Amino acid sequence: MTQNTKLGCLYGIGVGPGDPDLITLKALKALQKAPVICVPQAANRRDSYALSIVKDYVTPEQEILRAPFPTDDAEGAARVWREAAKLVIERLEKGQDVAFLTEGDPMLFSTFSYVLAGVQEMCPQAPIEIIPGVSSVMAAAASSGAPLVTHGQRLAILPAAYGLEDLSQATDKFDTVVLMKVSPKIDETLADLKKLGLTGQSTYVRRVSTDREKVIKDVTKITPEDMDYFSLLIVKNDSAGNYAKEN
Amino acid sequence: MTQNTKLGCLYGIGVGPGDPDLITLKALKALQKAPVICVPQAANRRDSYALSIVKDYVTPEQEILRAPFPTDDAEGAARVWREAAKLVIERLEKGQDVAFLTEGDPMLFSTFSYVLAGVQEMCPQAPIEIIPGVSSVMAAAASSGAPLVTHGQRLAILPAAYGLEDLSQATDKFDTVVLMKVSPKIDETLADLKKLGLTGQSTYVRRVSTDREKVIKDVTKITPEDMDYFSLLIVKNDSAGNYAKEN
Repeated sequence: MTQNTKLGCLYGIGVGPGDPDLITLKALKALQKAPVICVPQAANRRDSYALSIVKDYVTPEQEILRAPFPTDDAEGAARVWREAAKLVIERLEKGQDVAFLTEGDPMLFSTFSYVLAGVQEMCPQAPIEIIPGVSSVMAAAASSGAPLVTHGQRLAILPAAYGLEDLSQATDKFDTVVLMKVSPKIDETLADLKKLGLTGQSTYVRRVSTDREKVIKDVTKITPEDMDYFSLLIVKNDSAGNYAKEN
Repeated sequence: MTQNTKLGCLYGIGVGPGDPDLITLKALKALQKAPVICVPQAANRRDSYALSIVKDYVTPEQEILRAPFPTDDAEGAARVWREAAKLVIERLEKGQDVAFLTEGDPMLFSTFSYVLAGVQEMCPQAPIEIIPGVSSVMAAAASSGAPLVTHGQRLAILPAAYGLEDLSQATDKFDTVVLMKVSPKIDETLADLKKLGLTGQSTYVRRVSTDREKVIKDVTKITPEDMDYFSLLIVKNDSAGNYAKEN
Protein backbone atom coordinates (compact mmCIF):
# COMPACT_ATOMS: atom_id res chain seq x y z
CA MET A 1 0.00 0.00 0.00
CA THR A 2 1.12 3.54 -0.70
CA GLN A 3 1.96 5.15 2.63
CA ASN A 4 0.54 8.50 1.55
CA THR A 5 -2.91 7.16 0.73
CA LYS A 6 -5.51 6.91 3.45
CA LEU A 7 -7.25 3.55 3.37
CA GLY A 8 -10.84 3.52 2.19
CA CYS A 9 -13.58 2.24 4.47
CA LEU A 10 -15.36 -1.06 3.93
CA TYR A 11 -19.10 -0.66 4.50
CA GLY A 12 -21.06 -3.85 5.05
CA ILE A 13 -24.54 -2.81 4.09
CA GLY A 14 -27.79 -4.66 4.66
CA VAL A 15 -30.21 -3.56 1.95
CA GLY A 16 -33.21 -5.37 3.46
CA PRO A 17 -35.34 -8.29 2.26
CA GLY A 18 -36.35 -7.09 -1.21
CA ASP A 19 -38.58 -4.00 -1.19
CA PRO A 20 -36.27 -1.06 -2.09
CA ASP A 21 -38.15 1.00 0.52
CA LEU A 22 -37.02 -1.38 3.25
CA ILE A 23 -33.48 -0.01 3.06
CA THR A 24 -32.50 2.25 5.98
CA LEU A 25 -31.59 5.90 5.56
CA LYS A 26 -28.12 5.07 6.83
CA ALA A 27 -27.58 2.30 4.30
CA LEU A 28 -28.85 4.48 1.49
CA LYS A 29 -26.49 7.35 2.39
CA ALA A 30 -23.45 5.03 2.62
CA LEU A 31 -24.40 3.31 -0.64
CA GLN A 32 -24.83 6.58 -2.54
CA LYS A 33 -21.51 7.97 -1.26
CA ALA A 34 -19.31 4.98 -2.09
CA PRO A 35 -17.34 5.05 -5.38
CA VAL A 36 -17.22 1.25 -5.42
CA ILE A 37 -20.18 -1.06 -4.87
CA CYS A 38 -19.26 -4.68 -4.29
CA VAL A 39 -21.73 -7.52 -4.71
CA PRO A 40 -21.29 -11.28 -4.45
CA GLN A 41 -21.85 -12.88 -7.84
CA ALA A 42 -22.23 -16.60 -8.44
CA ALA A 43 -20.83 -17.79 -11.79
CA ASN A 44 -24.16 -19.38 -12.73
CA ARG A 45 -26.31 -16.36 -11.89
CA ARG A 46 -27.16 -13.51 -14.17
CA ASP A 47 -27.32 -10.87 -11.50
CA SER A 48 -26.97 -10.12 -7.83
CA TYR A 49 -30.18 -10.05 -5.79
CA ALA A 50 -28.81 -7.42 -3.40
CA LEU A 51 -27.87 -5.20 -6.35
CA SER A 52 -31.28 -5.66 -7.98
CA ILE A 53 -32.94 -4.36 -4.80
CA VAL A 54 -31.03 -1.06 -4.86
CA LYS A 55 -30.56 -0.62 -8.62
CA ASP A 56 -32.53 2.64 -8.67
CA TYR A 57 -30.18 4.18 -6.09
CA VAL A 58 -26.96 3.39 -8.02
CA THR A 59 -25.47 5.87 -10.51
CA PRO A 60 -23.38 5.08 -13.62
CA GLU A 61 -20.36 6.76 -11.96
CA GLN A 62 -20.18 4.04 -9.33
CA GLU A 63 -18.03 1.01 -10.07
CA ILE A 64 -19.80 -2.33 -9.62
CA LEU A 65 -17.25 -4.82 -8.32
CA ARG A 66 -18.51 -8.36 -8.66
CA ALA A 67 -16.93 -10.62 -6.05
CA PRO A 68 -16.89 -14.26 -7.12
CA PHE A 69 -19.26 -16.38 -5.06
CA PRO A 70 -17.92 -19.85 -4.32
CA THR A 71 -19.56 -23.18 -5.05
CA ASP A 72 -20.42 -25.46 -2.14
CA ASP A 73 -16.95 -27.00 -2.08
CA ALA A 74 -15.73 -26.06 1.40
CA GLU A 75 -12.00 -26.00 0.65
CA GLY A 76 -12.34 -24.16 -2.64
CA ALA A 77 -14.81 -21.77 -1.02
CA ALA A 78 -12.22 -20.39 1.40
CA ARG A 79 -9.89 -19.65 -1.52
CA VAL A 80 -12.62 -17.95 -3.55
CA TRP A 81 -13.65 -15.76 -0.60
CA ARG A 82 -10.01 -14.76 -0.06
CA GLU A 83 -9.87 -13.69 -3.70
CA ALA A 84 -13.00 -11.62 -3.17
CA ALA A 85 -11.50 -10.00 -0.07
CA LYS A 86 -8.35 -9.21 -2.07
CA LEU A 87 -10.41 -7.42 -4.72
CA VAL A 88 -11.99 -5.31 -1.98
CA ILE A 89 -8.61 -4.59 -0.33
CA GLU A 90 -7.20 -3.38 -3.69
CA ARG A 91 -9.86 -0.66 -3.77
CA LEU A 92 -9.45 0.22 -0.08
CA GLU A 93 -5.70 0.64 -0.63
CA LYS A 94 -6.44 3.11 -3.43
CA GLY A 95 -8.32 5.12 -0.79
CA GLN A 96 -11.72 4.18 -2.19
CA ASP A 97 -14.66 3.38 0.08
CA VAL A 98 -16.31 0.08 -0.81
CA ALA A 99 -20.00 -0.57 -0.12
CA PHE A 100 -20.47 -4.34 0.10
CA LEU A 101 -24.16 -5.08 -0.42
CA THR A 102 -26.02 -7.93 1.15
CA GLU A 103 -29.74 -8.73 1.07
CA GLY A 104 -31.34 -8.73 4.52
CA ASP A 105 -28.82 -8.15 7.30
CA PRO A 106 -25.02 -8.44 6.88
CA MET A 107 -24.53 -10.40 10.13
CA LEU A 108 -27.18 -13.09 9.65
CA PHE A 109 -26.25 -15.88 7.20
CA SER A 110 -24.62 -13.35 4.91
CA THR A 111 -21.88 -13.66 2.32
CA PHE A 112 -20.48 -10.48 3.81
CA SER A 113 -19.18 -12.54 6.77
CA TYR A 114 -16.59 -14.21 4.55
CA VAL A 115 -15.34 -11.04 2.89
CA LEU A 116 -15.26 -9.34 6.30
CA ALA A 117 -13.12 -12.14 7.73
CA GLY A 118 -10.72 -11.92 4.78
CA VAL A 119 -10.33 -8.16 5.04
CA GLN A 120 -9.92 -8.30 8.85
CA GLU A 121 -7.17 -10.89 8.40
CA MET A 122 -5.30 -9.51 5.39
CA CYS A 123 -5.74 -5.78 6.00
CA PRO A 124 -6.44 -5.42 9.75
CA GLN A 125 -5.90 -1.65 9.69
CA ALA A 126 -8.77 -1.09 7.22
CA PRO A 127 -11.67 0.86 8.72
CA ILE A 128 -14.89 -1.12 8.64
CA GLU A 129 -18.45 0.03 9.28
CA ILE A 130 -21.33 -2.41 9.31
CA ILE A 131 -24.85 -1.09 8.74
CA PRO A 132 -27.53 -3.51 9.90
CA GLY A 133 -30.59 -4.21 7.77
CA VAL A 134 -34.10 -5.59 7.98
CA SER A 135 -33.85 -9.38 7.93
CA SER A 136 -36.21 -11.54 5.87
CA VAL A 137 -37.13 -13.21 9.18
CA MET A 138 -38.70 -10.04 10.57
CA ALA A 139 -40.19 -9.10 7.20
CA ALA A 140 -41.80 -12.54 6.88
CA ALA A 141 -43.38 -12.22 10.31
CA ALA A 142 -44.69 -8.77 9.32
CA SER A 143 -46.24 -10.17 6.13
CA SER A 144 -47.74 -13.12 8.00
CA GLY A 145 -49.46 -10.74 10.43
CA ALA A 146 -48.39 -12.80 13.46
CA PRO A 147 -45.65 -11.88 15.96
CA LEU A 148 -42.48 -13.98 15.91
CA VAL A 149 -42.18 -13.93 19.70
CA THR A 150 -43.79 -11.92 22.48
CA HIS A 151 -42.56 -11.18 26.00
CA GLY A 152 -40.94 -14.21 27.63
CA GLN A 153 -40.90 -16.38 24.50
CA ARG A 154 -37.98 -18.02 22.72
CA LEU A 155 -36.96 -17.87 19.08
CA ALA A 156 -34.70 -20.25 17.14
CA ILE A 157 -33.45 -19.60 13.62
CA LEU A 158 -32.11 -22.66 11.82
CA PRO A 159 -30.45 -22.97 8.41
CA ALA A 160 -31.62 -25.40 5.76
CA ALA A 161 -29.83 -28.47 7.13
CA TYR A 162 -32.11 -30.14 9.65
CA GLY A 163 -33.90 -33.42 10.08
CA LEU A 164 -36.86 -34.69 12.05
CA GLU A 165 -34.99 -35.12 15.33
CA ASP A 166 -33.47 -31.66 14.95
CA LEU A 167 -36.80 -30.06 14.24
CA SER A 168 -38.54 -31.97 17.01
CA GLN A 169 -36.05 -30.82 19.62
CA ALA A 170 -36.11 -27.22 18.42
CA THR A 171 -39.89 -26.95 18.32
CA ASP A 172 -40.06 -28.65 21.70
CA LYS A 173 -37.93 -25.98 23.37
CA PHE A 174 -38.76 -22.85 21.37
CA ASP A 175 -42.05 -21.01 20.96
CA THR A 176 -41.11 -20.15 17.39
CA VAL A 177 -38.66 -21.82 15.03
CA VAL A 178 -37.76 -20.22 11.71
CA LEU A 179 -36.39 -22.54 9.03
CA MET A 180 -34.35 -20.57 6.49
CA LYS A 181 -34.08 -21.31 2.74
CA VAL A 182 -36.49 -24.18 3.11
CA SER A 183 -37.44 -24.83 -0.55
CA PRO A 184 -34.93 -27.58 -1.41
CA LYS A 185 -36.06 -29.59 1.64
CA ILE A 186 -39.74 -28.67 1.57
CA ASP A 187 -41.18 -32.20 1.10
CA GLU A 188 -39.22 -33.74 3.96
CA THR A 189 -39.91 -30.71 6.14
CA LEU A 190 -43.67 -30.84 5.57
CA ALA A 191 -43.63 -34.56 6.34
CA ASP A 192 -41.69 -33.88 9.54
CA LEU A 193 -44.08 -31.10 10.59
CA LYS A 194 -47.00 -33.46 10.05
CA LYS A 195 -45.37 -36.09 12.30
CA LEU A 196 -44.88 -33.42 14.95
CA GLY A 197 -48.49 -32.21 14.68
CA LEU A 198 -47.31 -28.71 13.71
CA THR A 199 -48.68 -28.45 10.17
CA GLY A 200 -51.46 -26.12 11.30
CA GLN A 201 -49.04 -23.82 13.11
CA SER A 202 -46.65 -23.27 10.20
CA THR A 203 -46.51 -20.46 7.64
CA TYR A 204 -44.47 -20.48 4.42
CA VAL A 205 -43.18 -17.15 3.10
CA ARG A 206 -41.49 -16.71 -0.28
CA ARG A 207 -39.64 -13.61 -1.63
CA VAL A 208 -40.94 -11.49 1.20
CA SER A 209 -41.70 -7.80 0.53
CA THR A 210 -41.35 -8.13 -3.27
CA ASP A 211 -43.98 -8.42 -5.99
CA ARG A 212 -43.26 -12.15 -5.98
CA GLU A 213 -44.10 -12.44 -2.29
CA LYS A 214 -46.38 -15.29 -1.31
CA VAL A 215 -47.54 -16.06 2.22
CA ILE A 216 -49.07 -19.54 2.57
CA LYS A 217 -50.79 -20.14 5.89
CA ASP A 218 -52.06 -23.59 4.96
CA VAL A 219 -48.78 -25.29 4.17
CA THR A 220 -50.54 -28.37 2.81
CA LYS A 221 -51.38 -26.13 -0.17
CA ILE A 222 -47.74 -25.42 -1.13
CA THR A 223 -47.05 -26.35 -4.77
CA PRO A 224 -43.77 -26.73 -6.69
CA GLU A 225 -44.50 -23.31 -8.29
CA ASP A 226 -44.29 -21.72 -4.85
CA MET A 227 -40.68 -22.76 -4.42
CA ASP A 228 -37.95 -20.11 -4.36
CA TYR A 229 -34.37 -19.77 -3.16
CA PHE A 230 -35.55 -17.00 -0.82
CA SER A 231 -38.11 -18.87 1.22
CA LEU A 232 -38.64 -19.69 4.86
CA LEU A 233 -41.04 -21.39 7.23
CA ILE A 234 -42.22 -19.94 10.52
CA VAL A 235 -43.21 -22.75 12.87
CA LYS A 236 -45.02 -21.94 16.10
CA ASN A 237 -45.42 -24.35 18.97
CA ASP A 238 -47.93 -23.16 21.53
CA SER A 239 -47.01 -26.02 23.82
CA ALA A 240 -43.23 -25.46 23.70
CA GLY A 241 -41.65 -25.99 27.10
CA ASN A 242 -38.83 -24.03 28.60
CA TYR A 243 -35.39 -25.57 28.62
CA ALA A 244 -35.34 -25.84 32.38
CA LYS A 245 -38.74 -26.74 33.73
CA GLU A 246 -38.01 -25.29 37.15
CA ASN A 247 -37.73 -21.77 35.72
CA MET B 1 -68.61 2.95 13.82
CA THR B 2 -70.19 5.32 11.29
CA GLN B 3 -71.06 3.27 8.21
CA ASN B 4 -70.09 6.09 5.87
CA THR B 5 -66.56 6.44 7.18
CA LYS B 6 -63.79 4.27 5.76
CA LEU B 7 -61.73 2.71 8.52
CA GLY B 8 -58.22 4.06 8.98
CA CYS B 9 -55.23 1.74 8.64
CA LEU B 10 -53.16 0.61 11.61
CA TYR B 11 -49.46 0.74 10.75
CA GLY B 12 -47.15 -1.24 13.02
CA ILE B 13 -43.85 0.49 12.47
CA GLY B 14 -40.39 -0.65 13.52
CA VAL B 15 -38.26 2.46 13.93
CA GLY B 16 -35.02 0.53 14.47
CA PRO B 17 -32.67 0.21 17.45
CA GLY B 18 -31.99 3.86 18.26
CA ASP B 19 -30.09 5.72 15.52
CA PRO B 20 -32.74 7.80 13.67
CA ASP B 21 -30.92 6.91 10.42
CA LEU B 22 -31.65 3.23 11.00
CA ILE B 23 -35.31 3.75 10.16
CA THR B 24 -36.37 2.41 6.74
CA LEU B 25 -37.67 4.62 3.95
CA LYS B 26 -40.95 2.73 4.15
CA ALA B 27 -41.36 3.33 7.88
CA LEU B 28 -40.48 6.99 7.50
CA LYS B 29 -43.06 7.51 4.73
CA ALA B 30 -45.82 5.79 6.74
CA LEU B 31 -44.89 7.70 9.88
CA GLN B 32 -44.90 11.07 8.14
CA LYS B 33 -48.27 10.40 6.47
CA ALA B 34 -50.19 9.30 9.57
CA PRO B 35 -52.34 11.89 11.39
CA VAL B 36 -52.08 9.88 14.63
CA ILE B 37 -48.86 8.50 16.09
CA CYS B 38 -49.37 5.98 18.87
CA VAL B 39 -46.63 5.08 21.35
CA PRO B 40 -46.68 2.82 24.39
CA GLN B 41 -46.14 4.87 27.52
CA ALA B 42 -45.41 3.43 30.96
CA ALA B 43 -46.86 5.47 33.84
CA ASN B 44 -43.45 5.77 35.50
CA ARG B 45 -41.60 6.90 32.39
CA ARG B 46 -41.18 10.43 31.17
CA ASP B 47 -41.12 9.59 27.50
CA SER B 48 -41.35 6.85 24.92
CA TYR B 49 -38.07 5.50 23.57
CA ALA B 50 -39.56 4.76 20.15
CA LEU B 51 -40.88 8.32 19.93
CA SER B 52 -37.54 9.79 21.00
CA ILE B 53 -35.85 7.98 18.09
CA VAL B 54 -38.09 9.60 15.46
CA LYS B 55 -38.82 12.95 17.15
CA ASP B 56 -37.19 14.92 14.32
CA TYR B 57 -39.54 13.35 11.78
CA VAL B 58 -42.75 14.20 13.66
CA THR B 59 -44.65 17.46 13.00
CA PRO B 60 -46.81 19.46 15.47
CA GLU B 61 -49.89 18.65 13.35
CA GLN B 62 -49.63 14.96 14.21
CA GLU B 63 -51.50 13.74 17.29
CA ILE B 64 -49.37 11.78 19.74
CA LEU B 65 -51.58 9.11 21.27
CA ARG B 66 -49.97 7.62 24.38
CA ALA B 67 -51.17 4.07 24.94
CA PRO B 68 -50.89 3.03 28.59
CA PHE B 69 -48.18 0.42 29.10
CA PRO B 70 -49.12 -2.21 31.71
CA THR B 71 -47.18 -3.21 34.79
CA ASP B 72 -45.93 -6.78 35.09
CA ASP B 73 -49.23 -8.00 36.54
CA ALA B 74 -50.35 -10.53 33.95
CA GLU B 75 -54.10 -10.27 34.53
CA GLY B 76 -54.13 -6.48 34.75
CA ALA B 77 -51.84 -6.32 31.71
CA ALA B 78 -54.41 -7.90 29.41
CA ARG B 79 -56.97 -5.28 30.49
CA VAL B 80 -54.55 -2.39 29.99
CA TRP B 81 -53.60 -3.59 26.51
CA ARG B 82 -57.27 -3.90 25.58
CA GLU B 83 -57.74 -0.27 26.65
CA ALA B 84 -54.79 0.71 24.45
CA ALA B 85 -56.29 -1.19 21.51
CA LYS B 86 -59.62 0.58 22.11
CA LEU B 87 -57.90 3.97 21.91
CA VAL B 88 -56.40 2.96 18.56
CA ILE B 89 -59.73 1.62 17.27
CA GLU B 90 -61.45 4.94 18.15
CA ARG B 91 -59.10 6.72 15.76
CA LEU B 92 -59.39 4.05 13.05
CA GLU B 93 -63.20 4.37 13.21
CA LYS B 94 -62.87 8.09 12.61
CA GLY B 95 -61.06 7.15 9.38
CA GLN B 96 -57.66 8.17 10.73
CA ASP B 97 -54.53 6.14 10.00
CA VAL B 98 -52.60 5.29 13.16
CA ALA B 99 -48.82 4.75 13.13
CA PHE B 100 -47.96 2.59 16.13
CA LEU B 101 -44.24 3.02 16.83
CA THR B 102 -42.02 0.37 18.26
CA GLU B 103 -38.25 0.38 18.77
CA GLY B 104 -36.47 -2.35 16.82
CA ASP B 105 -38.88 -4.61 14.98
CA PRO B 106 -42.65 -4.81 15.66
CA MET B 107 -42.76 -8.63 15.58
CA LEU B 108 -39.85 -9.39 17.95
CA PHE B 109 -40.64 -8.91 21.67
CA SER B 110 -42.65 -5.81 20.87
CA THR B 111 -45.48 -4.08 22.70
CA PHE B 112 -47.12 -3.78 19.29
CA SER B 113 -48.03 -7.50 19.50
CA TYR B 114 -50.57 -6.79 22.25
CA VAL B 115 -52.21 -3.84 20.54
CA LEU B 116 -52.27 -5.80 17.29
CA ALA B 117 -54.03 -8.72 18.99
CA GLY B 118 -56.60 -6.37 20.55
CA VAL B 119 -57.36 -4.62 17.26
CA GLN B 120 -57.54 -7.93 15.34
CA GLU B 121 -60.03 -9.22 17.93
CA MET B 122 -62.21 -6.14 18.50
CA CYS B 123 -62.10 -4.64 15.01
CA PRO B 124 -61.25 -7.51 12.64
CA GLN B 125 -62.19 -5.52 9.56
CA ALA B 126 -59.52 -2.85 10.24
CA PRO B 127 -56.76 -2.75 7.61
CA ILE B 128 -53.36 -3.43 9.14
CA GLU B 129 -49.89 -2.98 7.64
CA ILE B 130 -46.78 -4.02 9.50
CA ILE B 131 -43.46 -2.47 8.49
CA PRO B 132 -40.48 -4.46 9.75
CA GLY B 133 -37.50 -2.73 11.30
CA VAL B 134 -33.85 -3.28 12.17
CA SER B 135 -33.71 -5.29 15.39
CA SER B 136 -31.25 -4.47 18.18
CA VAL B 137 -30.00 -8.05 17.75
CA MET B 138 -28.70 -7.37 14.24
CA ALA B 139 -27.49 -3.89 15.18
CA ALA B 140 -25.56 -5.27 18.17
CA ALA B 141 -23.83 -7.82 15.95
CA ALA B 142 -22.92 -5.02 13.50
CA SER B 143 -21.43 -2.93 16.32
CA SER B 144 -19.53 -5.93 17.69
CA GLY B 145 -17.93 -6.52 14.29
CA ALA B 146 -18.62 -10.26 14.44
CA PRO B 147 -21.30 -12.16 12.47
CA LEU B 148 -24.22 -13.57 14.45
CA VAL B 149 -24.32 -16.74 12.37
CA THR B 150 -22.78 -17.84 9.09
CA HIS B 151 -23.87 -20.53 6.65
CA GLY B 152 -25.10 -23.69 8.40
CA GLN B 153 -25.07 -22.22 11.92
CA ARG B 154 -27.93 -21.91 14.42
CA LEU B 155 -29.14 -18.87 16.32
CA ALA B 156 -31.24 -18.73 19.49
CA ILE B 157 -32.77 -15.57 20.91
CA LEU B 158 -33.88 -15.82 24.53
CA PRO B 159 -35.74 -13.29 26.67
CA ALA B 160 -34.52 -12.20 30.10
CA ALA B 161 -35.85 -15.21 32.04
CA TYR B 162 -33.25 -17.96 31.93
CA GLY B 163 -31.11 -19.88 34.38
CA LEU B 164 -27.93 -21.92 34.23
CA GLU B 165 -29.55 -25.09 32.92
CA ASP B 166 -31.42 -23.09 30.32
CA LEU B 167 -28.30 -21.31 29.17
CA SER B 168 -26.24 -24.47 29.19
CA GLN B 169 -28.70 -26.32 26.96
CA ALA B 170 -29.06 -23.38 24.57
CA THR B 171 -25.33 -22.77 24.19
CA ASP B 172 -24.80 -26.50 23.78
CA LYS B 173 -27.10 -26.68 20.77
CA PHE B 174 -26.73 -23.26 19.16
CA ASP B 175 -23.66 -21.60 17.66
CA THR B 176 -24.88 -18.24 18.91
CA VAL B 177 -27.27 -17.39 21.73
CA VAL B 178 -28.51 -13.84 22.24
CA LEU B 179 -29.79 -12.96 25.71
CA MET B 180 -32.15 -9.99 25.54
CA LYS B 181 -32.54 -7.26 28.19
CA VAL B 182 -29.82 -8.85 30.28
CA SER B 183 -29.04 -6.03 32.74
CA PRO B 184 -31.30 -7.04 35.67
CA LYS B 185 -29.79 -10.56 35.63
CA ILE B 186 -26.23 -9.64 34.68
CA ASP B 187 -24.47 -10.97 37.82
CA GLU B 188 -26.11 -14.40 37.68
CA THR B 189 -25.62 -14.54 33.92
CA LEU B 190 -21.91 -13.75 34.11
CA ALA B 191 -21.50 -16.38 36.84
CA ASP B 192 -23.32 -18.90 34.65
CA LEU B 193 -21.20 -18.06 31.60
CA LYS B 194 -18.07 -18.58 33.72
CA LYS B 195 -19.29 -22.02 34.81
CA LEU B 196 -19.92 -22.88 31.15
CA GLY B 197 -16.47 -21.64 30.09
CA LEU B 198 -18.05 -19.09 27.74
CA THR B 199 -16.91 -15.82 29.36
CA GLY B 200 -14.31 -15.24 26.64
CA GLN B 201 -16.86 -15.78 23.87
CA SER B 202 -19.44 -13.30 25.11
CA THR B 203 -20.03 -9.66 24.14
CA TYR B 204 -22.21 -7.16 26.00
CA VAL B 205 -23.92 -4.41 24.00
CA ARG B 206 -25.84 -1.51 25.54
CA ARG B 207 -28.07 1.08 23.76
CA VAL B 208 -26.84 -0.03 20.39
CA SER B 209 -26.50 2.58 17.62
CA THR B 210 -27.03 5.56 19.96
CA ASP B 211 -24.54 7.96 21.51
CA ARG B 212 -24.85 5.89 24.69
CA GLU B 213 -23.79 2.71 22.89
CA LYS B 214 -21.18 0.61 24.62
CA VAL B 215 -19.74 -2.66 23.31
CA ILE B 216 -17.86 -4.64 25.95
CA LYS B 217 -15.90 -7.59 24.57
CA ASP B 218 -14.33 -8.49 27.91
CA VAL B 219 -17.47 -9.09 29.93
CA THR B 220 -15.48 -9.41 33.16
CA LYS B 221 -15.03 -5.63 32.85
CA ILE B 222 -18.77 -4.79 32.97
CA THR B 223 -19.57 -2.30 35.75
CA PRO B 224 -22.90 -1.22 37.29
CA GLU B 225 -22.60 2.00 35.24
CA ASP B 226 -22.77 -0.07 32.06
CA MET B 227 -26.25 -1.35 32.90
CA ASP B 228 -29.23 -0.25 30.80
CA TYR B 229 -32.75 -1.46 30.08
CA PHE B 230 -31.73 -1.82 26.42
CA SER B 231 -28.89 -4.27 26.74
CA LEU B 232 -28.07 -7.72 25.44
CA LEU B 233 -25.38 -10.37 25.45
CA ILE B 234 -24.17 -12.23 22.38
CA VAL B 235 -22.77 -15.62 23.42
CA LYS B 236 -20.88 -17.73 20.89
CA ASN B 237 -20.08 -21.37 21.35
CA ASP B 238 -17.56 -22.61 18.82
CA SER B 239 -18.06 -26.16 20.03
CA ALA B 240 -21.86 -26.15 19.86
CA GLY B 241 -23.20 -29.45 18.56
CA ASN B 242 -26.13 -29.97 16.28
CA TYR B 243 -29.39 -31.13 17.76
CA ALA B 244 -29.20 -34.44 15.98
CA LYS B 245 -25.65 -35.70 15.86
CA GLU B 246 -26.31 -37.88 12.85
CA ASN B 247 -26.97 -34.83 10.70
